[in-house]
Amino acid sequence: MSTEKAAYHHGNLREALVRTALALLEDGGVEALTLRAAARGAGVSAMAPYRHFADKAALLTAVAAQGYADLRDRLAHADGQTDARQALVEQGVAYVLFAYERPALFRLMFGAPLAAPKVAPASADTAYGILAARVAGLVPEAERETATMAAWSLVHGLACLTVDGRLPPPAQGNAPTTEALARRVTGLFAAGLPADGGDAGRGRSRGR
Amino acid sequence: MSTEKAAYHHGNLREALVRTALALLEDGGVEALTLRAAARGAGVSAMAPYRHFADKAALLTAVAAQGYADLRDRLAHADGQTDARQALVEQGVAYVLFAYERPALFRLMFGAPLAAPKVAPASADTAYGILAARVAGLVPEAERETATMAAWSLVHGLACLTVDGRLPPPAQGNAPTTEALARRVTGLFAAGLPADGGDAGRGRSRGR
Repeated sequence: MSTEKAAYHHGNLREALVRTALALLEDGGVEALTLRAAARGAGVSAMAPYRHFADKAALLTAVAAQGYADLRDRLAHADGQTDARQALVEQGVAYVLFAYERPALFRLMFGAPLAAPKVAPASADTAYGILAARVAGLVPEAERETATMAAWSLVHGLACLTVDGRLPPPAQGNAPTTEALARRVTGLFAAGLPADGGDAGRGRSRGR
Repeated sequence: MSTEKAAYHHGNLREALVRTALALLEDGGVEALTLRAAARGAGVSAMAPYRHFADKAALLTAVAAQGYADLRDRLAHADGQTDARQALVEQGVAYVLFAYERPALFRLMFGAPLAAPKVAPASADTAYGILAARVAGLVPEAERETATMAAWSLVHGLACLTVDGRLPPPAQGNAPTTEALARRVTGLFAAGLPADGGDAGRGRSRGR
């Protein structure tokens, strides 16, 4: 106990448990994630996690919350483009790759079984908020909510189909990489968004 | 046995079991779906299902296959419009409503855990094929595969977010119905698809 206190203080144990839990999740799925295994991975006694988590569900919720934060950071990082449509594409690619690289976490965050935190209302602090802000700069106000919802649905659907192995095989040739497919799909969507500013029409039309 | 033979012949028992299984699935989720319960529901002995299904997984696969057929029929039925973009919207709405009305079946068809049949390659016999055919009539050839994939991702993502309760609450006012939301989201997407025939640009631009 005193060793644990020395190694983990000021919330460090909580962080260490969540970090360990994330690794367990990716290695063995949600079944592998127990408070006991997290304790072992963090090098503390089996009882130590109970200081921070009442049960496995509480740990899962914390893990999902960390996942939302990671996804938000990833979208924010991807969104560093000067061109607004390109920024939207990069966000979409980042979303799909997040799911592709961390499928168990993605399922935990968005799957049905968990009583995880719902996607929070749009604010700059959430992944949805980062997407909404980018869309808001692109489309007329009347279509912003619909366009944000559509953009989210698009990448979420592609992510789910990818993670669950439900993509149809390509009509010919090799299947594109996940990144290439995500880039094409989000590129087509972004090009088709109604442009802000009236009669300029859609992005791609303008570009022709 | 002789009663069963009288009641079910020429594959009728198989159909009855799948029909019963579909009802069990919607009532109690995949856990409620056992060969024993299906037998009870169909009014046959507990051993009778084994004539058609080796185990629960085989029954689940048959149920999912029936789900794909139902989804295909629903998309085909929805796609009866003279306006091609409107037909695409109706297909999308039908897809989302299918998931909304039959969430357990939808999860079985597209969720990860089941070793269910994958979405088959595009052919007129599949839901994907019906979508692909409609998209093919709308967009230039070079963009068809991407546009079909994008359309599928869009409605699949909206369906998943709906079924899993992950839709963000509306910024203001009441949440739209599932149908209204699906109509808006697919409408925005369809309007933004690149139009076939060169420089006419995108659908909505043309309409302005």
